[in-house]
Amino acid sequence: MKLVVVGGVAAGMSAASRARRMDASAEIVVLEKGQRISYGACGLPYWIEGQVRGLDELTVYTPEFFERERNIRVRLGAEVAALHPARREVVLADGERIGFDRLVWAAGARPRQRFDDPRVFSLHTDTDAVRLQAALHEGKPRTAAVVGGGYIGLEMAGALRARGLEVELHDRGPHLLHWNEDWLTKMIAERLERSRVSVHLNSAVEDPRALRKDLILTATGLTPNAAIPAAAGAETGRSGALRVNDYCETSIAGVYAAGDCCETRHAVTGAAAWVPLGTTANKMGRVAGANAAGRRERFFGIAGTTVVRIAGLGVATTGLSAALAAGEGFGAVAARITKRERPAYFRGRKAAVELVGDRRTGRLLGGAVVGDIDPTGRINVVAAALHAHLTVDQFAQLDLAYAPPYATVMDPLLVAAQELLKLLD
Amino acid sequence: MKLVVVGGVAAGMSAASRARRMDASAEIVVLEKGQRISYGACGLPYWIEGQVRGLDELTVYTPEFFERERNIRVRLGAEVAALHPARREVVLADGERIGFDRLVWAAGARPRQRFDDPRVFSLHTDTDAVRLQAALHEGKPRTAAVVGGGYIGLEMAGALRARGLEVELHDRGPHLLHWNEDWLTKMIAERLERSRVSVHLNSAVEDPRALRKDLILTATGLTPNAAIPAAAGAETGRSGALRVNDYCETSIAGVYAAGDCCETRHAVTGAAAWVPLGTTANKMGRVAGANAAGRRERFFGIAGTTVVRIAGLGVATTGLSAALAAGEGFGAVAARITKRERPAYFRGRKAAVELVGDRRTGRLLGGAVVGDIDPTGRINVVAAALHAHLTVDQFAQLDLAYAPPYATVMDPLLVAAQELLKLLD
Repeated sequence: MKLVVVGGVAAGMSAASRARRMDASAEIVVLEKGQRISYGACGLPYWIEGQVRGLDELTVYTPEFFERERNIRVRLGAEVAALHPARREVVLADGERIGFDRLVWAAGARPRQRFDDPRVFSLHTDTDAVRLQAALHEGKPRTAAVVGGGYIGLEMAGALRARGLEVELHDRGPHLLHWNEDWLTKMIAERLERSRVSVHLNSAVEDPRALRKDLILTATGLTPNAAIPAAAGAETGRSGALRVNDYCETSIAGVYAAGDCCETRHAVTGAAAWVPLGTTANKMGRVAGANAAGRRERFFGIAGTTVVRIAGLGVATTGLSAALAAGEGFGAVAARITKRERPAYFRGRKAAVELVGDRRTGRLLGGAVVGDIDPTGRINVVAAALHAHLTVDQFAQLDLAYAPPYATVMDPLLVAAQELLKLLD
Repeated sequence: MKLVVVGGVAAGMSAASRARRMDASAEIVVLEKGQRISYGACGLPYWIEGQVRGLDELTVYTPEFFERERNIRVRLGAEVAALHPARREVVLADGERIGFDRLVWAAGARPRQRFDDPRVFSLHTDTDAVRLQAALHEGKPRTAAVVGGGYIGLEMAGALRARGLEVELHDRGPHLLHWNEDWLTKMIAERLERSRVSVHLNSAVEDPRALRKDLILTATGLTPNAAIPAAAGAETGRSGALRVNDYCETSIAGVYAAGDCCETRHAVTGAAAWVPLGTTANKMGRVAGANAAGRRERFFGIAGTTVVRIAGLGVATTGLSAALAAGEGFGAVAARITKRERPAYFRGRKAAVELVGDRRTGRLLGGAVVGDIDPTGRINVVAAALHAHLTVDQFAQLDLAYAPPYATVMDPLLVAAQELLKLLD
């Protein structure tokens, strides 16, 4: 069996590795168009910020490692230009044809906009980061604009501030992040302003090159790298990303997909959703690789969990906000509380918790946790509850850990759930 | 409607408050045999340790607050001596008879052993803590023994060390805590020894008064305060605690129970279990109070989640260890990994995660998280999964939050689940 994997970052390398574990004798080839595999792209803003010393610190494994330890052949600079399902082959940009028995398409996504201008940057690949790093070192820019108030834009606004630049942030819409709630946008904007990032909402920047700044970073979202399988007949969803079933199979027999190039099932809506994130890519890649090697594993889908640190403020969300849930047809109700995460005598800091429930079914639909804390533990509890379709009354009684050095007897999560129950009653 | 609540700590005050919210006109009386209500008993070791300045810091609400704000009458020093279901009355120790329409029994638990000796102490009530505090101030003890290696014993060993005493800890069994696994006992014992608490396992102390120490603290477990309802005909379980159904009803009509005096359903075994903890008492109290006031709410049970900090080491468990699960008839398999909780470039510290699964059903049965970290976030995710009866393969794909300042792309929980899946395969 010959397995070809297209893409050598999170989903691709996970797929190749897991396929190898399932099938010791398969021939496995990874085609990566770039010059580096398996790097922690999510760490790139922190290299710019200065927390990470170099790209090597973000690179998990080298091609040599995969060759030597896992008998996986990695070809760098190998860009796939076409897919021929009937002939079971892919064609590289230089015309080379490579046959396969099974294919995992894990080509990721790319910035929706790129501008060919020496002052305008993206931060998506290692190459982007190297170029930006060089410009910061050599060009000594003093002023910067960040276009896009998603988590990359927010991380980069912080990173550029940390490098001493004057920074302004623009978003075309009325909200920062994707939660679409005024209270959260306000908390984030206030924190940014306090760290001297000036925030401009409802500010559509049609051409970033027109901004009079030394450096402009665009982070206006991604588009999936799905055109080649789509041209070969693979179905795509509304997002343009590949559609896959719960086994990571595209509509082309023997062709699997995983990661940022494809949709997956959302645990709350039950429908296909496109939420490109490295964590999902790793997990889907594992499933796609196992199934390509003959297993029959399910990928159970996502809750849409994200976390970002913005000038010290931890902001985490999962599932649907009330605004998003209403858009999906739920009878959405939200409750928000602010409460210390630990007793005052253990210097507990305050956390804001919002939970969203469905009036018709009593189900929990989503949540947000925000504060000068690490919000991951609590948001992960909400995420687990969403995967499990817990109702708000079940959630309100979760047996969460308590000891004074770490928690309060009624965790903010439970207090928020109790408030939400009153509204659902 | 007249509601009498017996016990004014966690379960009792929660029951009274929730009943008031459900029924604005009911007469509500709380009978508390002690001199203080609604105090955070779990914080007592930290008052001894010196983190908490005084008992007042642990007292959430006063009787006056309940009278004034919630129209709940609180009688201190009111010890119930008998219950007469047919006459719908309780009799106090001084002979006074108090009638009720509904009763919530929330009388808690008490130390299994108490010794009438000036050198021997328990730490269960505010009175215990005051007595111990006075002995530490006035007696200037230099050496101490702690008898019992459960979480109270472990917290108190740390507290007495923090007060400068030489401390030794004895447990009659081969393990510390209740997880019954050698690896965890070893980690805790090493940490205690490093903080100069000498640990003696398999060391049965039949009479603590025989120990040649200036101060002896016994923490050898609790026994439920259930004798009075039991004498009145209420069913009890193997533990001696009251049996209640999912609505917190005892077998006596109109008599509810909540908190440390009663059993509840364990989410993993589905059977009744007696796990006296303040968090459960609060939640059960709310349900008992609501139902006593005419609602029909379910208490969904517990996962048995606990956390304790031992000389800086965070130790959290939930559900069943492999040893406990085997004892319950499961085909228990455990996997344990150690992994950084955050990237090295964010100074991530190592966390040990053990997960336990059932070979026959693939269900997750329990977990432990241990390290120089706050383990509550992760153990709470496991607890939520136990409540929801997730399988290990579902758990391994949970959409957990990732950003470099807070987490790794594959959380230690997920890596442990992947290892466990290999063993279950």
